[in-house]
Amino acid sequence: MASLTPLAEGPEFDKIRAIWRALGDHGAGAGDDCAIVELGSETVALSSDMAVEGIHFRAGWLEPRELGWRAGAAALSDLAAVAAQPRGVLVSLALIPEWPDEFVAELMAGVGDVAASVGALVWGGDVVRGDRLVVDVLVVGTVADPVLRTGAQVGDELWVTGRLGGPARAIAAWEAGIEPERTARERFAHPEPRVAAAMWLRDEGATALIDLSDGLVQDAGQLAAASGVRCVIDVDAVPRHPAVDDGETALASGEEFELLVALPVDAEPDLARRFGQEHGLELTRIGAVESGAGLELQSGGEPVAPPAGFRHF
Amino acid sequence: MASLTPLAEGPEFDKIRAIWRALGDHGAGAGDDCAIVELGSETVALSSDMAVEGIHFRAGWLEPRELGWRAGAAALSDLAAVAAQPRGVLVSLALIPEWPDEFVAELMAGVGDVAASVGALVWGGDVVRGDRLVVDVLVVGTVADPVLRTGAQVGDELWVTGRLGGPARAIAAWEAGIEPERTARERFAHPEPRVAAAMWLRDEGATALIDLSDGLVQDAGQLAAASGVRCVIDVDAVPRHPAVDDGETALASGEEFELLVALPVDAEPDLARRFGQEHGLELTRIGAVESGAGLELQSGGEPVAPPAGFRHF
Repeated sequence: MASLTPLAEGPEFDKIRAIWRALGDHGAGAGDDCAIVELGSETVALSSDMAVEGIHFRAGWLEPRELGWRAGAAALSDLAAVAAQPRGVLVSLALIPEWPDEFVAELMAGVGDVAASVGALVWGGDVVRGDRLVVDVLVVGTVADPVLRTGAQVGDELWVTGRLGGPARAIAAWEAGIEPERTARERFAHPEPRVAAAMWLRDEGATALIDLSDGLVQDAGQLAAASGVRCVIDVDAVPRHPAVDDGETALASGEEFELLVALPVDAEPDLARRFGQEHGLELTRIGAVESGAGLELQSGGEPVAPPAGFRHF
Repeated sequence: MASLTPLAEGPEFDKIRAIWRALGDHGAGAGDDCAIVELGSETVALSSDMAVEGIHFRAGWLEPRELGWRAGAAALSDLAAVAAQPRGVLVSLALIPEWPDEFVAELMAGVGDVAASVGALVWGGDVVRGDRLVVDVLVVGTVADPVLRTGAQVGDELWVTGRLGGPARAIAAWEAGIEPERTARERFAHPEPRVAAAMWLRDEGATALIDLSDGLVQDAGQLAAASGVRCVIDVDAVPRHPAVDDGETALASGEEFELLVALPVDAEPDLARRFGQEHGLELTRIGAVESGAGLELQSGGEPVAPPAGFRHF
């Protein structure tokens, strides 16, 4: 059977494990943010990301062009999470027939905008009829030297890009029927795939990378499972988006598309300053890699219970 | 703006034209069965194919493993349609949470089966929550010398692989609440991507290829529009699946995944026999490529009106 990168516990991951067992020899190794395959002279990274209206977003929250940007960014973030250079994008759309062609064109223009922002083109896709909007974005990148989620070493330190919780804050506002704060809305509508940041971190010696699509708690658990280590995170160190006033939101907020990165301890102390200068973005040390398994959250050196992250099932 | 291969008239294609206009410089040339791009030393063909339960199929018609085969075959057929060698597949699934993990694993095993049947592997994908099954299959192939739908020359002859109408016949039976004839059901449940046949036809000098995912009438119209020619098809020559007793069904039946191919006239007369020997499949001459535009159907040398094909919108 093809090797599957170890995944954390949970019903979503039971499903993925069942799939890879059933595929047997017909599957290639998987379980990272991207599939990594050799095609001729290139190492190619591929990933897909599907979003269903009414489950992953509501059409009324965003303009069509923002919907497209967001869907594209979510998929491109998976390329960032292995430090790949995005090359092209395919988009499959299930559309309600009543949607005017201008909406569809705007949505795809949004995908084109975010692809171009990281050096990729829209190569094609499929348009079919549906009874609600479904957007599946497939991204293809090239990568000479991928940084996987399997490489964290005991003694490494854990860092996170940006400030967390904005998307969760925006969603909570919409669900309460109010318009989110502008900056939180912006974090949801226009996430930036951290492609340049990931390459920079790779060049600084990053041993493991993962994007925070499922939220810091869940994705740190994945990194720990994949690397066969224990991640210890100081919840008081986790940087919060300015609109976020509680730590739980920052820990659980999914759809972040920031990066969690493991770096050797000697990367300090100038790293964050140089990163900020280069990328206009914060890089914050939030924890360490220890021997053991799973994720431990601490506050003042004492263990604390994790909040629930977003679950796909 | 990126070049878009000319498409036939129709609201579905207006939508695609609007998308490519909106993408401007952020889109690469499209409009064929696959996107064709250069990646390092390889020419890569990519395509995606999305199917929504209740619109493109009903879950009760097929076993989960058959659903997976069929979804994979539909996408792999696009690689056949440019004579590419399939390499890998990514699958995005929106799943009803109540679906047992065994169903999902069986569905993916079906994708793995059809991928392996043409030399490809399942590389990865995405699994998300939905309120109905959505399957999007992305296929990646390599191709030194693609056969596009743009290359048909005036004077070529038009040929079709296999016998048409089986899938439409099966769908009509299910929609009438009866079980389809076994062979018609099989054509719907287990279509074979004509990968080897397409490569053989390329080596015999095929000038243009398209698969019959939207039915012979629609796809012959696409080939005519893309090549800037007129396709003339003798409806009496179109080979019908044994369970099909009317010519209209064979002309309009989509989801066929047989190939329509343009070949120079001097390919005759031994071609069909050698093709049959090699592929265990019929190859039938059904018409010719003339100067002009659009599709003309003839019977006894006289023009006849086309039936309606499957429309995505």
